[in-house]
Amino acid sequence: MPITGTTRVFLILGDPVEQVRAPEVFNHVFRRHGIDAVLVPAQVAAADLPGFVRHVFKARNIDGLWLAIPHKAPMVDLLDECDRAGRIAGAVNAVRRGPDGRIEGALFDGAGFVKALDHLGIAARGRNALVVGVGGGGVAVAAALAERGVRRLDLFDTAPGRAAAVAQRLRVEFGTDARARDDADPVGFDLVVNASPRGLKPDDPPPVDAARLHAGAAVVDIVMKNQPTALLRACHARGITAFPGFEMLVQQVPEYLSFFGYDNIARAITADASELRALIEAA
Amino acid sequence: MPITGTTRVFLILGDPVEQVRAPEVFNHVFRRHGIDAVLVPAQVAAADLPGFVRHVFKARNIDGLWLAIPHKAPMVDLLDECDRAGRIAGAVNAVRRGPDGRIEGALFDGAGFVKALDHLGIAARGRNALVVGVGGGGVAVAAALAERGVRRLDLFDTAPGRAAAVAQRLRVEFGTDARARDDADPVGFDLVVNASPRGLKPDDPPPVDAARLHAGAAVVDIVMKNQPTALLRACHARGITAFPGFEMLVQQVPEYLSFFGYDNIARAITADASELRALIEAA
Repeated sequence: MPITGTTRVFLILGDPVEQVRAPEVFNHVFRRHGIDAVLVPAQVAAADLPGFVRHVFKARNIDGLWLAIPHKAPMVDLLDECDRAGRIAGAVNAVRRGPDGRIEGALFDGAGFVKALDHLGIAARGRNALVVGVGGGGVAVAAALAERGVRRLDLFDTAPGRAAAVAQRLRVEFGTDARARDDADPVGFDLVVNASPRGLKPDDPPPVDAARLHAGAAVVDIVMKNQPTALLRACHARGITAFPGFEMLVQQVPEYLSFFGYDNIARAITADASELRALIEAA
Repeated sequence: MPITGTTRVFLILGDPVEQVRAPEVFNHVFRRHGIDAVLVPAQVAAADLPGFVRHVFKARNIDGLWLAIPHKAPMVDLLDECDRAGRIAGAVNAVRRGPDGRIEGALFDGAGFVKALDHLGIAARGRNALVVGVGGGGVAVAAALAERGVRRLDLFDTAPGRAAAVAQRLRVEFGTDARARDDADPVGFDLVVNASPRGLKPDDPPPVDAARLHAGAAVVDIVMKNQPTALLRACHARGITAFPGFEMLVQQVPEYLSFFGYDNIARAITADASELRALIEAA
C-alpha cells in the first residue's frame, strides 16, 4: 500500500525521536489491514511543542499525534479534552483532532497494563497490590489497578511526597484504599509491579527484594530493557509468576487504533495478537 | 526500507492534496536507492500556510516541503532565500531548511523543461520561440528558454498585460529579445510551447493553429491531461515534431533530489531515467 495523496498521516513527536519503535509497529499494522495511513517521526523540542501541535493540526489529513518523551506530560496542558486516565496521570500517549477541531488526548498505559494482566491470567480485583515507582507510567498503572478494584494499593517512590500525592488522588478518584509507603518491602502483597527505572541500568539493584515475596504473588516488571531483568530472574529462580512489560506494549496497540477510529482493526488484533507480538519483539 | 525513528521526513502541501503524485514517485526513488526518507501529503489551506511552514520546520527531521496548488506562488513571500528561477517566476516547487535555519526555496519547472528538450533532442539556442500562456508554468518555461539563449522569445497570454510584464522582466534579467504578442499565430517560429490551460478540457480548441506551423518547427504541449492533446494530434497528423510535458516531470525529479542533498541519486537517475519514466507513467 503505497503512500499517495489520499493517505491519512500521523506523527510521533519526541526529542530525540530516533529510538521510537511505533512507526515500525503501526505502519505494519496499517499495511497488514489495508489502511491508507502512515505514522512518521517528528523531532520536536519541548519549547516548540505548543506551536507545532497547534499548526500541524491545521493540515486536514494529519489526524493525530503519538507523544514520546519528553512530551507526554506537557501535552496535557495543550488539550481541549483529556480522558480520565490522562487526567489522573497527568500525561497522554496520543492526541487527535475532534470533529469540531478540538484537540483530544488519551493515555493508554493503564488500559494496556490491565489488559496485559488479563492476557497473562493475573487477576487484579480484590488483591493487595504494591506499585514501586509512581512517575509517569507508575501513576497510570496504579490508577488502572484502582479502577479494576484492587483491595489495597500501596505506592512507593523515592521522590519525597510523590507517592502520598498519588495515593490521595486515587482515594478521591476511585475510593480505593491507597496509601504511600516508605519502602518497597513486598511482604503482604500478592501483586507487585515495578514501574520505577530500577533495572534500566544493568548494575541497578533490584527494585524489590524477591526473597521477601510471597510464593503465590504475581510480579510485573515494566522495565523494557535488559530482559530478563534482575527482578524477573530472581522471581523465576524462586518459581514466582513474573512477567516483563512487553505484553503491556502489545495491549496498547488496539487502544491507539480505537482512539483513531480504526475499531475494526483494534478488534481483529485483540482477537489474535500473535502476529503483533512477533512484530513488537522484532522491532 | 521501513519508516523508523531515524527516517527523514518531507511533506507535500496542497489544497486539495488527494491528486498529488509525488509521494508515489519519490518514495519509490527513496526505497529504490536505499534512502531513509519519506514524502507524505499534508492538506493545508492557503490561509494556514505561513503558520504551518514556520512551525513544521521546527521539527529537526522534517527537511523540506514540496508545494502543490495553491501554494507555489504564496510560498515565495515566506522565504528567506529564493533561487533565480523562483524569483523570476514568482513561484517555487520546494523549500528546505538551510543550515542556519533559513527557509530556502527553488523552482524546477524551467530546468525540467530545458532538460526535457535536451533529452528529446530539441535545441533551444538561437531559435525563435513562442510560449503560449505565461501563468505559473509558462513564466518558468519562458525564463528557462531565455537563459538557454533563444534568439527571439514571443509570449502570448489571454490575461491583459501579463505577457508584456513577463517579456519586460525577461529582457531585464537575461537581455533576451522578448516581446508580448496579441495572438498565438505560430508563423515564423521554430519552437512553440503551449503552457496555457487550453487542452485541459476535452473540448477546448487547440491553443495554436497547427495548420500554420512551420514544417520544421518543434512543439511541446505541457498540458498533462487528455493525452495526446488535440494540439499534439494535429502536429503528428502533419508530421511535425511534438511532445507532451511528460518528460518535463521526469527531468524535475533529479532537481528535487539535488536540492535536498541527494546528489548521488540525482546523478544516477539523470544517467538512466528509464525506470523513473515507467514509474511516472504508471502513477
